[in-house]
Amino acid sequence: MKVTSIRIRGYHCDAYGHVNNARFLELLEEARWKFLEPAVRERFFETEKLLFVVVNINIAFKRPLLPHQLIHIHIKDLTYNNRSVSMIQEIIDDRSSVVCSRAEIQFVLLDSITQKPVPISDEIKAKFEQLLTDD
Amino acid sequence: MKVTSIRIRGYHCDAYGHVNNARFLELLEEARWKFLEPAVRERFFETEKLLFVVVNINIAFKRPLLPHQLIHIHIKDLTYNNRSVSMIQEIIDDRSSVVCSRAEIQFVLLDSITQKPVPISDEIKAKFEQLLTDD
Amino acid sequence: MKVTSIRIRGYHCDAYGHVNNARFLELLEEARWKFLEPAVRERFFETEKLLFVVVNINIAFKRPLLPHQLIHIHIKDLTYNNRSVSMIQEIIDDRSSVVCSRAEIQFVLLDSITQKPVPISDEIKAKFEQLLTDD
Amino acid sequence: MKVTSIRIRGYHCDAYGHVNNARFLELLEEARWKFLEPAVRERFFETEKLLFVVVNINIAFKRPLLPHQLIHIHIKDLTYNNRSVSMIQEIIDDRSSVVCSRAEIQFVLLDSITQKPVPISDEIKAKFEQLLTDD
Repeated sequence: MKVTSIRIRGYHCDAYGHVNNARFLELLEEARWKFLEPAVRERFFETEKLLFVVVNINIAFKRPLLPHQLIHIHIKDLTYNNRSVSMIQEIIDDRSSVVCSRAEIQFVLLDSITQKPVPISDEIKAKFEQLLTDD
Repeated sequence: MKVTSIRIRGYHCDAYGHVNNARFLELLEEARWKFLEPAVRERFFETEKLLFVVVNINIAFKRPLLPHQLIHIHIKDLTYNNRSVSMIQEIIDDRSSVVCSRAEIQFVLLDSITQKPVPISDEIKAKFEQLLTDD
Repeated sequence: MKVTSIRIRGYHCDAYGHVNNARFLELLEEARWKFLEPAVRERFFETEKLLFVVVNINIAFKRPLLPHQLIHIHIKDLTYNNRSVSMIQEIIDDRSSVVCSRAEIQFVLLDSITQKPVPISDEIKAKFEQLLTDD
Repeated sequence: MKVTSIRIRGYHCDAYGHVNNARFLELLEEARWKFLEPAVRERFFETEKLLFVVVNINIAFKRPLLPHQLIHIHIKDLTYNNRSVSMIQEIIDDRSSVVCSRAEIQFVLLDSITQKPVPISDEIKAKFEQLLTDD
């Protein structure tokens, strides 16, 4: 499991006073980039000419997120299909440890030349498992 | 069915050059507000002290959206549960009529005093059906 | 003068309940793309390999913008320098005609090959003046 | 001087591949909230019933910001007027120490009851100076 912590700000929110549902997806994307940072640094995906492309998101909004709230975004439960990967992202409130949102993200790795999804090789699986467990 | 048309701009896109997945949710929200405009004007939900709150979104990103592209967002297939409503939103490319994205949106109507979801009454159902069919 | 009309939505706003200052810049950018649409359609800037790049924005926030408010964004007073152009954008409330925000935008036209600002030629000036006056 | 560090992500960027000008204002707002965090924690402005409202931003975009770039946002040079405060925010590239953007932000403190800007008292000035110098 990998965790990214974010402090909610007024500009994340909408006129209802809590974080807008589109902004949830940006918070989740921030956590995915943070998760991928070691691989970006070693140019793993760049060398392989692979682009991350999200193909499906199923997100449940369980609790509102409010200004000044500290949240922790967990990435876990990666599942490897032939040509796609699924992961679970959960947004956890710092104080109560309550799950405020739960999302299932499905993405492909696009060959940046052919623009087709590549097969999820053992090398790619090993890289993701390393990202999940490393500090 | 109800249609909202939007021209994609450079600021809707991310570093990949196509519309970012968080921004898809804003485009869908714009279409929902457009759909609700007649009810907002007659203060239907305000009088009833009801707030729209989205509780789940399941969205498939099928085709990238690009700058200058004209899209049409369809709202259809409303399904009424005891205390929630589901709808389908599809993003259609103007030129090819291809479905670029399909989302199932589930929302509740929150009593703004008690902050609890109200039952979906026949009056509420009739209002939505009127919004779907009226010009 | 050129006018773009936009309906303010809840998602344009922040936790203060009015449009966030970053979002003002998106509303202004939407109006600039609308203004440029005829030139985009005839591929004027594309043929010339020119990119619009904003180099300075000086924006005064005079009145808050609220959900459901209808605004009109005016573009006017283009001033041509050697290698940059300035314009005024004003956000006008539909009901009161009050100026809610006034911005001075300075931009350059970047040669997409050399990445240097090109001189503002008579042809470019004529194109902007045409965009300002045409319907 | 106070510094907030942010890693640029693909979703901060637009179709030009670099950070969109509206997003610069969100990055600057993030740095202002970070700067204000100790005062938020001790409920300084809440107790005084004061709201931060930005009234003018003059921002120069000097260098593009790109995905994966690490930036440092500096807050400095606070100037106190009768009923407003000005500050300078600079965005500095981590590697080159080049100033990529410089903004002058003018804000007022609004009395949340009367909705009028309050005079900038010696107590308020002392609080800001403490925020600038404390760790």
